[in-house]
Amino acid sequence: MSRPFNFSAGPATLPEEVLQQAAAEMLDWHGSGMSVMEMSHRGKEFMSIYEDAESNIRELLEVPQEFSILFMQGGGIAENAIVPLNLSGGQKADYVVTGNWSNRSQKEARKYCSVNLAASNEANGHTHMPAPASWQLSLDARYVHVCSNETVHGVEMHELPDLNALGSAAPLVIDFSSHMASRPVDWSRVGLAYGGAQKNVGPAGLTLVFVRKNLLGNALPHCPTAFDYQVVSSNQSMYNTPPTYAIYIAGLTFKWMKEQGGISVIEQRNIAKAQLLYNYIDGSDLYISRVTQDCRSRMNVPFFLREEKLNDLFLAGAKEHQLLQLKGYKTLGGMRASLYNAMPLEGVQALVNYMRAFELKHA
Amino acid sequence: MSRPFNFSAGPATLPEEVLQQAAAEMLDWHGSGMSVMEMSHRGKEFMSIYEDAESNIRELLEVPQEFSILFMQGGGIAENAIVPLNLSGGQKADYVVTGNWSNRSQKEARKYCSVNLAASNEANGHTHMPAPASWQLSLDARYVHVCSNETVHGVEMHELPDLNALGSAAPLVIDFSSHMASRPVDWSRVGLAYGGAQKNVGPAGLTLVFVRKNLLGNALPHCPTAFDYQVVSSNQSMYNTPPTYAIYIAGLTFKWMKEQGGISVIEQRNIAKAQLLYNYIDGSDLYISRVTQDCRSRMNVPFFLREEKLNDLFLAGAKEHQLLQLKGYKTLGGMRASLYNAMPLEGVQALVNYMRAFELKHA
Repeated sequence: MSRPFNFSAGPATLPEEVLQQAAAEMLDWHGSGMSVMEMSHRGKEFMSIYEDAESNIRELLEVPQEFSILFMQGGGIAENAIVPLNLSGGQKADYVVTGNWSNRSQKEARKYCSVNLAASNEANGHTHMPAPASWQLSLDARYVHVCSNETVHGVEMHELPDLNALGSAAPLVIDFSSHMASRPVDWSRVGLAYGGAQKNVGPAGLTLVFVRKNLLGNALPHCPTAFDYQVVSSNQSMYNTPPTYAIYIAGLTFKWMKEQGGISVIEQRNIAKAQLLYNYIDGSDLYISRVTQDCRSRMNVPFFLREEKLNDLFLAGAKEHQLLQLKGYKTLGGMRASLYNAMPLEGVQALVNYMRAFELKHA
Repeated sequence: MSRPFNFSAGPATLPEEVLQQAAAEMLDWHGSGMSVMEMSHRGKEFMSIYEDAESNIRELLEVPQEFSILFMQGGGIAENAIVPLNLSGGQKADYVVTGNWSNRSQKEARKYCSVNLAASNEANGHTHMPAPASWQLSLDARYVHVCSNETVHGVEMHELPDLNALGSAAPLVIDFSSHMASRPVDWSRVGLAYGGAQKNVGPAGLTLVFVRKNLLGNALPHCPTAFDYQVVSSNQSMYNTPPTYAIYIAGLTFKWMKEQGGISVIEQRNIAKAQLLYNYIDGSDLYISRVTQDCRSRMNVPFFLREEKLNDLFLAGAKEHQLLQLKGYKTLGGMRASLYNAMPLEGVQALVNYMRAFELKHA
């Protein structure tokens, strides 16, 4: 029996091959006589798992050596505090609000520094991306924070802003939780990128942070030591015991990505998947996407039924058709289909087929 | 083939039944069509896993309703900051130093409050437990912090101190990472207890915090919201995405503990296991335990070969006999056998048999 298609926004579907390998190795990893869960994080077995994971994601995303890759805990929400604790120096930071997540980021940052709201798309319901040329950047910001893909509102920056060209010398900080490893990254434009693993990479409980080494060592005095990027970096993410099993699953996912042909191949698939769904929605009379065309997320597709009273029927039928976790975010309602790397084109095709049949039946 | 015996101090051995069930359910949990890793943390499937885990650990440890149980991230080392961020009010706290871990706790706390070192066993190399009657407690401490089992030095408080009887009205905070769920807890003496899961409970990346509800709501303004106990508690540990898979494994381990007969039965086994090993060490001419008899840890048994040049030979032979991860902590040297709940008596017997044969050969 084939597995259902799981459109959860995160924790989210993982490649079946990864899960199969994890199941097969559960009681005995590579003849070690131990589950990965049972290994000392400092032993040679786990160190080899860790080093493979680190080098594979570095290779996949072409992360330059000027960046440290940190394996942390707490997810994007903890990073909302950890970023200003490390980078703000208690001074000023620019925040661009484009949806639920960047809004939460700027609110949390106010605990630690002065926040300049450089731009916001709140007035239009977070459905378009404010053009970088319109951002009101500060001259004295310690960093500029954006969420390059809004998981709730489905708004994505398909190109990262070039802050230099906008007259800012501050490093760009991106929350890329929900598009991490779905497309290449132009690191020349980035100072720091962070993301929870539970979208494209692995289980919840692991956060990846890619940070330019020249930004390390500036933590505020009240930053918990376990969340001081400098400490995490100089201890190879083992100042506190890392989430070893989550790192192992992430490592298996990185290997799977390499087998798929790497990030460029995966990006092309993601474009095709998103196009299939958006094209169908745009041509339909029942479904609607509220996001402006040029910034529609390839990862998270919120859509709405024009007749809201059909929502429950739609979800129940979807489940019968083995199409899972399509309910929209609590504050937004409607539906949301997340199309992360592990979602095959056939899954999106199955969703479109179901949506078409449902529309015909209820037209 | 039977599995080797794994004496790692953490991440540590887990019950084979737990690992088998996790492997069997990896691709499809209870007919849901999803791995537990792939479930939305807010969906009904994961919520049932979470609620079962919470109610089972509450039942096992007889945790009163006045306590919230929090599932957090960052381990004991993050809690070293999170505790004073939540409980110190920037004022004073008493710390009792009994080994490596409580020493790290008091150092980190100095970032957030004034620390009174109420007692320390450093002068004797952390080999005995300072008697509570000798502690120099402050009248104005916001809490008193102890580590009730020192994983590195192998010193355990077999009874929690009664602060009231010592003239302190402050709540007792215990770091019980390495004896959590190995013995009953006298909650009447406890204000807050925290521990990383990676000893007796599950994978690294999950921290359990048991906190008296009347201590909630006192976080310092610069406490990251994701680590504010009040916020974590009122959001059922889902303010940020929790480490769902680690919670699932912990839940399976709790069920296993119940099947074993509960914590009292497990405690009796732990006493028998520790006695077997200490008795052998005390009667031998080659091995030595440096810890005073009345505070020897049942969970972590550091021991030393009188002839240190035999260390490598001992470890290599142990591995050949399927006795894994016996090397002592980096700063202490020697050996350490951790005898967590999932280590059967046969494992300790196999270790003693090997130690005896090794001693005979090298006498």
